[in-house]
Amino acid sequence: MSLKTGESSSNIEDLTIGNLTAHVIQMSTKGEDSRVKYLTAKLIQHLHDFVRDVELQTDEWEVAWQFLTRIGQTCTPERQEFVLLSDVLGVSALVDAINSKQTSGATESSVLGPFFSDTAKVFENGESITSNSIAGEPMLIRGAVLDTAGKPIPRALVDIWETDGNGFYDMQDVEYNEPDCRGKFFTDTSGKFYLKGVKPVDYPIPNDGPVGEILQLFNRDWYRPAHVHYMIMHPEYEKLVTAVYSRESKYIIEDPVFGTKKSLVVDFVWTQDEALAKTYGISPIERIMGSEKSRGFWLLERDFVLVSKKSKGGRKINDTVV
Amino acid sequence: MSLKTGESSSNIEDLTIGNLTAHVIQMSTKGEDSRVKYLTAKLIQHLHDFVRDVELQTDEWEVAWQFLTRIGQTCTPERQEFVLLSDVLGVSALVDAINSKQTSGATESSVLGPFFSDTAKVFENGESITSNSIAGEPMLIRGAVLDTAGKPIPRALVDIWETDGNGFYDMQDVEYNEPDCRGKFFTDTSGKFYLKGVKPVDYPIPNDGPVGEILQLFNRDWYRPAHVHYMIMHPEYEKLVTAVYSRESKYIIEDPVFGTKKSLVVDFVWTQDEALAKTYGISPIERIMGSEKSRGFWLLERDFVLVSKKSKGGRKINDTVV
Repeated sequence: MSLKTGESSSNIEDLTIGNLTAHVIQMSTKGEDSRVKYLTAKLIQHLHDFVRDVELQTDEWEVAWQFLTRIGQTCTPERQEFVLLSDVLGVSALVDAINSKQTSGATESSVLGPFFSDTAKVFENGESITSNSIAGEPMLIRGAVLDTAGKPIPRALVDIWETDGNGFYDMQDVEYNEPDCRGKFFTDTSGKFYLKGVKPVDYPIPNDGPVGEILQLFNRDWYRPAHVHYMIMHPEYEKLVTAVYSRESKYIIEDPVFGTKKSLVVDFVWTQDEALAKTYGISPIERIMGSEKSRGFWLLERDFVLVSKKSKGGRKINDTVV
Repeated sequence: MSLKTGESSSNIEDLTIGNLTAHVIQMSTKGEDSRVKYLTAKLIQHLHDFVRDVELQTDEWEVAWQFLTRIGQTCTPERQEFVLLSDVLGVSALVDAINSKQTSGATESSVLGPFFSDTAKVFENGESITSNSIAGEPMLIRGAVLDTAGKPIPRALVDIWETDGNGFYDMQDVEYNEPDCRGKFFTDTSGKFYLKGVKPVDYPIPNDGPVGEILQLFNRDWYRPAHVHYMIMHPEYEKLVTAVYSRESKYIIEDPVFGTKKSLVVDFVWTQDEALAKTYGISPIERIMGSEKSRGFWLLERDFVLVSKKSKGGRKINDTVV
C-alpha cells in the first residue's frame, strides 16, 4: 500500500451561506409531528436570517452562547431568568397578546412574570396572605369573578401574589422557606373573594444577573409599576392570567416587561372606613396623606370576567411546512 | 375620602401585536454602542417575527424556556450544550461561513465544536498526545503550515484535538482529570509539525442531554464523521479553526453539525512503511485489512495554508439601526 495525502475531492456538496439553511431545515423536519416540524423549520429560518442579516461575528456568537449559558445557570427553583429574559425582550407580552385574542367584555390578560409559584397555600376568604413580620401597609383585596353576561362564578380558584411593602417577593428573600404574600382562594356562592394583603410597591426586576447586565447595556429602567398578580381558574372557563397596576406609579408607561394595559390600571384607594375595617378584621395604621395624619388602610377592589370554554371557537394553528 | 374602584382609563397606549415590537426596540436601543444597538434591534425584530409568524402558543413558549433552562444547566466546564445546540441548528456553521470569506488558496475553516479545551499541554514535535491506556490504533499526524505563496511558517502554534478509538473526547470520561488526545505543537524552522495520536472514529455527539432530545424529535442522526480538529495560530496570520474528515465515513454527507467541506475530506492511510515507523518511533500493530492480516499504522498527512493579517482588508460591520 502506498501513501496518499489528503486534499482530494469528494462527492459532497459544500454548504454555503446560501444553501445551508435549506439543508438544515430538510434534515431537521423528518419527524412525525407536523406542528413540531413547522416550528422547527420556521425557527431555523428566522434564526439563520438574523445571523445572516447582521453578519454575526465570531466573537459576538461567543458572547451570545456564554450569555445564554449564564442565563440558564442563574435559574433556580426560585428564580426563572429565562422567563425574565423573555419578559424584558417583549416576547412574553407578545405571546400573551397572540394567545389572548380579546373576547368582548372579558378581563384582559397580562404577563405571568418570573415570580409565580405553585407553592401558595389555600386560604379561606377573609384570611391574610401575609405573615406577621412582613413589611407593608395593610390592604384589603376584594372582587368578584363573573362570566361575560355578568353572572357570578362560584368556586373559581383565585391565585394571588404580590410583593411586600419593600418590593420583594417571598422567594427573593435569602431566608425564604414559607410562601408569603401569595395565596389561593375560592370564590363564594356569590362569586366573591376577599383577603388581607399589603399594598405592593414599585420594585426593580432582578438586576443582579445576566438580564440585569443587558438592561444596563440597553440603558433601560428596571422598575415595574406596583401591581397584584391574579391567576383565575375554573373548569368551565378559560384560565385568566392577569395583574392590576397602580395608577400612581411613574413606571406605568415604561414597564420593563411590557405587562401594563389601560384596562388593568387601578387605584389603590386609601380609606378611613372603620366599619369596613371591622367587617374584614383589618387593623388600620396611621400615615401621612398629603400633609395630614390619617388613620386607615388601603383597598383594592376589582372584578374579573372570564370567558366560557364553550364560547371560544377552536383556532386552527398553522403546521404547514413551507 | 371615598372609595374608588378600578377599571378607569389611563393615558397609556396599549401595546398590541402590531405596535409592541417597535416599542420594545425603541426602549432597548438607548445605549451608546451602535453595533450593540443594531444587534439588539435586529434580534428583537427577528425574534418577534418568529413568534408572530408561528403564532407561538403559551404552552409552546413554556416548553421553550424550560428547554433553554435545561440546556444552560447541562453546561459544565467540560460540556458546552449551548454550542452543541448552535452546532445542530446549523448556526455555528453559518457563523463560520460568514466569518471566513474564503481567501484563494487558504485552507477552509470548520466548526470549533463543543470539545475544544485550552487545557492542552505543549509538546515537542514527535511526541505522543495520547496516554498509554488510551483506546485506538496508532496514527502519525504530520503536515506543514504555509502562507498563501507556499512559504513555510515557522513557530506557528498548532493545537490539535481528537477522539480516542472509542469515539470519546477526554472530557467525556467521568474519570477525566488529565488532558488526553489533545496537544499544542509549534512548527519547526521548515514550518512542519508531527506527532503521534490515534485514528479517530465516527462518534455520536452527546445525546444524553436536551440537544439529544431534539435530535430524537427531529428524527436526525447524531454520528459525526471521524475527524481531527486543528486550531492554528501565529501573530502575523489570521487564526484558522478547522478539522479534517475521514473520506471513509458514511456520515460525511449528513454531518449533524454541518462541519464537513469537500476540501477538508482526507484519507487516513494505512501504511506498512517500517522506515517511517522507525523515524517517528511508532509501534506498528497487526490488524485485518481487507481479508488479510497486515502489520502497520495509520498516517494523516495534511498541510494548512494561513492568510496573512496584512492581506486581509478591514471589513465594515453594519451598525445602522433601521
